[in-house]
Amino acid sequence: MARTMMDAPLTLDVLVRRAAEQTGHVEIVSRRPDKSIHRTTYAAVVGRSLRLARALVSLGIRPGDRVATLMWNHAEHLEAYFGIPLSGAVLHTLNLRLPPEEICWIINDAKDRLLVIDEVLLPLFMKCGGPSLFERVYVVRSSADPLPEGLSDYEALLASAPEVALPALAEEQPLGTCYTSGTTGKPKGVVYTHRSTVLHSLVSALPDSLDLSRRDCLLPVVPMFHVNAWGLPYTCAMVGCKLVFPGPHLDGKSILELMEAERVTLAAGVPTIWLGIRDELERQPRKLQPGVRMVVGGAAAPEQLIRDFDRMGLLLLHAWGMTETSPVGLVSRLTPEAEALPEAERYALRAKQGVPPPLVEVRVRNDAGDVPRDARTSGELLVRSPWVASSYVNNAAPERWTDDGWFRTGDVATIDAYGFVQLVDRTADLIKSGGEWIASQTIENRLMGHATIREAAVIGVAHAKWSERPLAVIAFKAGQSATPDELRAFVTEHLPKFWAPDEFVVVEAIPRTSAGKFDKRALRESYRR
Amino acid sequence: MARTMMDAPLTLDVLVRRAAEQTGHVEIVSRRPDKSIHRTTYAAVVGRSLRLARALVSLGIRPGDRVATLMWNHAEHLEAYFGIPLSGAVLHTLNLRLPPEEICWIINDAKDRLLVIDEVLLPLFMKCGGPSLFERVYVVRSSADPLPEGLSDYEALLASAPEVALPALAEEQPLGTCYTSGTTGKPKGVVYTHRSTVLHSLVSALPDSLDLSRRDCLLPVVPMFHVNAWGLPYTCAMVGCKLVFPGPHLDGKSILELMEAERVTLAAGVPTIWLGIRDELERQPRKLQPGVRMVVGGAAAPEQLIRDFDRMGLLLLHAWGMTETSPVGLVSRLTPEAEALPEAERYALRAKQGVPPPLVEVRVRNDAGDVPRDARTSGELLVRSPWVASSYVNNAAPERWTDDGWFRTGDVATIDAYGFVQLVDRTADLIKSGGEWIASQTIENRLMGHATIREAAVIGVAHAKWSERPLAVIAFKAGQSATPDELRAFVTEHLPKFWAPDEFVVVEAIPRTSAGKFDKRALRESYRR
Repeated sequence: MARTMMDAPLTLDVLVRRAAEQTGHVEIVSRRPDKSIHRTTYAAVVGRSLRLARALVSLGIRPGDRVATLMWNHAEHLEAYFGIPLSGAVLHTLNLRLPPEEICWIINDAKDRLLVIDEVLLPLFMKCGGPSLFERVYVVRSSADPLPEGLSDYEALLASAPEVALPALAEEQPLGTCYTSGTTGKPKGVVYTHRSTVLHSLVSALPDSLDLSRRDCLLPVVPMFHVNAWGLPYTCAMVGCKLVFPGPHLDGKSILELMEAERVTLAAGVPTIWLGIRDELERQPRKLQPGVRMVVGGAAAPEQLIRDFDRMGLLLLHAWGMTETSPVGLVSRLTPEAEALPEAERYALRAKQGVPPPLVEVRVRNDAGDVPRDARTSGELLVRSPWVASSYVNNAAPERWTDDGWFRTGDVATIDAYGFVQLVDRTADLIKSGGEWIASQTIENRLMGHATIREAAVIGVAHAKWSERPLAVIAFKAGQSATPDELRAFVTEHLPKFWAPDEFVVVEAIPRTSAGKFDKRALRESYRR
Repeated sequence: MARTMMDAPLTLDVLVRRAAEQTGHVEIVSRRPDKSIHRTTYAAVVGRSLRLARALVSLGIRPGDRVATLMWNHAEHLEAYFGIPLSGAVLHTLNLRLPPEEICWIINDAKDRLLVIDEVLLPLFMKCGGPSLFERVYVVRSSADPLPEGLSDYEALLASAPEVALPALAEEQPLGTCYTSGTTGKPKGVVYTHRSTVLHSLVSALPDSLDLSRRDCLLPVVPMFHVNAWGLPYTCAMVGCKLVFPGPHLDGKSILELMEAERVTLAAGVPTIWLGIRDELERQPRKLQPGVRMVVGGAAAPEQLIRDFDRMGLLLLHAWGMTETSPVGLVSRLTPEAEALPEAERYALRAKQGVPPPLVEVRVRNDAGDVPRDARTSGELLVRSPWVASSYVNNAAPERWTDDGWFRTGDVATIDAYGFVQLVDRTADLIKSGGEWIASQTIENRLMGHATIREAAVIGVAHAKWSERPLAVIAFKAGQSATPDELRAFVTEHLPKFWAPDEFVVVEAIPRTSAGKFDKRALRESYRR
């Protein structure tokens, strides 16, 4: 019996066409570098992105060619998100927080042909090597100054777009590429397809995932150069909800102003952002939308932060993913059974990374095989899904995949009776003390639950007798402090005695990576014993 | 640049595995023929469906072979929904409401090899031709009576399942087939794939579609032999929500008992069912879950019904689809802009068929091309999607597709400024009077808004001068009546004068098709002028 279903490929043009036709009037709001507010609509953005796509085709860009962006979050970046893939090319979002030499390395590895860049980022670009890295560079202007030699005006590019036909898209065709800002080794590229992006958008919007609908207004604090802002620009276009972009202004006060003025119902970012928002809200309460959801990913959210926001009537929703997973891999939303648990257990569950959404399969495996669902036995988290990488660009690091095709996340996790996965550490950050494993992140999260502590990072340092011992780097809240003995007692209340850090180093702030995570490589360097 | 995403096919086994692993303890409740309640879980149903799949493979069933079911809605039918496709075979749900000779015709057209059947349906089966139609017939028992000659016990089949490997599934592989109980010509088969089913499940669950989550408890009143109960068994398995099956007991009282006792949050069925439920609720209020959603499809829901349920605190959600569209094609959920409209306009919108969800594309086209979004100009509704048929089995009726590959629904529709599609008639039911088109369904829906009328169907009858004129067949509510002149005045308050029916025929109840729709073919036969 032959199938009789249509050959309708899962390609971006279907989502973009829907955004223009069904929700063309819905607003796209952007904060400019000068803090002014710019308003446009899906219909206008889609119209301009089709012009961009036609201009690229007429410049000789062919399916599979890379076109890079170096931009903050705003409407023109959204045009690039749509227009570059619609031309058949591959959107390559460069991470402006990486060291210039690393950006330069990535551009060469990806063999990018063109670049679209914010004018305010030109100084950084010049440090990376400047115009000679690309065939042509198009600048999104924010001043009337003359453009430096070798650069072109983005608006002139759009204005010049001829009436050429766009190539038909295939669902397995590359749509975008992102490089991991890996804590070890060279950055590694991942190439998303039209299919992986459409499927990821569908699953991200599900009620048990982000629960994203036409009624929402989403503010991606997460940069559009971090795993495509977690795919949210595509998910929003698919459901047709209002989008609010913060531009380069990512401080708590600026974000809260936007959330209040534009009636944001869902914001997304790394824990650091929400720590700042909490502190700002404690200083000055705002009139936010009731029940506004704040998706936190990129690093574990301390349980205390979830509790603090609950008190303010804001829902912090914990999720987990990686560049290699597009990124949505786990979402921590209480199941109906878990709703009935005592408060402490509910918060403990919400601070876990959660359960896989449909089409994501996870395993937690150690040397003895799949770990039992006992919330204690740990192993490496493996993941499989249509939106998980099967390799890196140029086949880098093939050891990250198992022989039977699962991606090895490098995260150490447990799994509980509810199926909730909890990351306890990175395989690379585990501390081996006297032959036993100590999970550094578990200690960090416990320490960040202490009333006096704002941030805590734990690393292993060499020790003559135990081979390694934990050292904690901590930053106190303003005007607060605690003794090492008090903190050790707090840690061992819930964790094994030998997990208590031998040493506490007090700092003003913990150094972070370009993705906003604690930079443990730098800490290990600084506190080498 | 080569893609680096995993080859992870969209196949049913991924959803079924998730149901067992993530939500294995969630209940599946079935009402038995004797009205007793049977309880099981996803884990148990999946376990038994894997046994069914292995038993089928060991019987020599090969990928693509058809295995039919003739069953009511219950847990064993869900096992067949999972187990038959997991064996690589094609699930063919036979519509027990069709005339026996039509069922027999369909079995032969589909070349079904095996049948799983409810014991209570054996008398019907014998009228269709009995055991000789299949290689083997397996009976889901509800008595201890000896089985008639030539029939086998379903439980014995499961018990006999050997430990054989199941074949790997491909996403383009057929998963199921349904035949349209067409109002004209022979039934026509549509073949769904694993891919179309997975995508349809994802989109059905979205917040702007049915908004289905783990927190829901769904009762499909719509039979599992009507477009796979609108795909809901698969959508529920994917999200892992509780399922409640009514068995053969579909009267308002039985349904309401189940909704109350099992805390149903979402029920789905044709308008007839909800008319009965409304009447029963008016007789005797029940304690239903606050905000319970009732999805209505299969025919237009009268606006009055939506208003009546709103008064009772129940949300009637209007949707549209066909066997050829898997079925979800349009969902009528108010957009944020529409929420701000005056009450009358809000209800008018909710009574429309709605907007297409992601990955469904619609056009309304007449001889002048795509119709303007003026809510007045009508044309035929065309649809395209990965879960819309591209042909019928044996290439029947190829004229139902346009040259550029859109499916011609045979529905006449308008589209408004909000993008809401409204069906005004079937192309086959349009009445041509004095050279002008009259939409029979528009008159019916208006008449069903009259305080005295329970049901109304309008057909064209031959007329010497005007060629055709509308005739209304109406059933009054108990103890109510109205004169033809009163009804004509009510119709022409909103519709053109010449749309008023010339004649009103009062009946006890309007005859219906096996799908619960007004049987206009029978009416045209009865009232031929």
